[in-house]
Amino acid sequence: MKLYDGGRAPNPRRMRIFLAEKGIEVPLVPVDMAAMGHKSAAITALNPFQRLPILELDDGTVLTESVAISRYFEELYPEPPLFGRGAVGKAQVEMWNRRVELYLLAAVTAAFRHTHPAMVEWEIPQVPAWGEANRPKAVAYMKIMDDQLARNEFIAGREFSIADITLLVGIDFLKPAKIQIPEELVSLRRWHADISSRPSAKA
Amino acid sequence: MKLYDGGRAPNPRRMRIFLAEKGIEVPLVPVDMAAMGHKSAAITALNPFQRLPILELDDGTVLTESVAISRYFEELYPEPPLFGRGAVGKAQVEMWNRRVELYLLAAVTAAFRHTHPAMVEWEIPQVPAWGEANRPKAVAYMKIMDDQLARNEFIAGREFSIADITLLVGIDFLKPAKIQIPEELVSLRRWHADISSRPSAKA
Repeated sequence: MKLYDGGRAPNPRRMRIFLAEKGIEVPLVPVDMAAMGHKSAAITALNPFQRLPILELDDGTVLTESVAISRYFEELYPEPPLFGRGAVGKAQVEMWNRRVELYLLAAVTAAFRHTHPAMVEWEIPQVPAWGEANRPKAVAYMKIMDDQLARNEFIAGREFSIADITLLVGIDFLKPAKIQIPEELVSLRRWHADISSRPSAKA
Repeated sequence: MKLYDGGRAPNPRRMRIFLAEKGIEVPLVPVDMAAMGHKSAAITALNPFQRLPILELDDGTVLTESVAISRYFEELYPEPPLFGRGAVGKAQVEMWNRRVELYLLAAVTAAFRHTHPAMVEWEIPQVPAWGEANRPKAVAYMKIMDDQLARNEFIAGREFSIADITLLVGIDFLKPAKIQIPEELVSLRRWHADISSRPSAKA
């Protein structure tokens, strides 16, 4: 198998952190997203949505979407579980992974893509008013995350999960989006220091 | 347990269709979203993100996000599987459910919420330019879905799955968003007629 990787972009990074947490090594095929490599004919043939990462299995099966690829590896290598344990635990991880991704990470991404000059060729059309509308949304969502982290070591509860990976990538993406973590969100800051110190954060 | 339901909105409907396909009956607590019931203090206490549906278990555990609640029921009642079978099958269902939800349904929802006059109090601020930007995206995504459905009976392959539920809700949401399925997308139209004829579509 091989994994088409996209470097520093959030979704390729989520994938590499997940694999590092699992201790799984997969040969990487680097794709230069800055040179629009993800829009090439070869990548489009693998994924018509032109997104990375992409996993290609030896039989030619193609899987896209970092969470879907992560679930494939979770099925093959269940330990340590990163999608939760038991019916309630799995649902809680899914719930928090979705809250982090669909609300916070989506808001941070929109703020970045719709306001950053470097994204003019990426986000067509850029709608700066939409980017700006997402900054206060991102802050409001971070406050809810902080409240959860005041009562729990990890975002989905007592165990590290894929939701922490998504949140790490979302928080680290604040910087290019020019959004700050409010000073008073001490639990989110504590969590961010903890998770950033894991070896997987460098993946 | 009880399920706080939100009527005709896409996510509550996804949840009811999923339960109908599984043959599971859960007592529903209707929440009047037109009267902003989902922003009440009682609902906010259950879900700080103020979204529906919400599942409350008898021990007080609260689960939100229709896909997370669906996964809870999939774990408890595996048959018929609606999240796929085997590592590759589960990943393919997750991949297609995400493609349908994060690209198509998100685009249709943005077009509706950012351009419809009735949504002024819902989407703050409304950014009409962002709504308009999503119409051609929705059409482009439908073309990719049509191509998949030209080669497969269901959106994730040979079996009905949660991804078909998400796609049904997305396609039915085109009407309020004032987007048409292009005439030439005959496979998507064939699929829509098939899935709409299932008893669960009325749930």
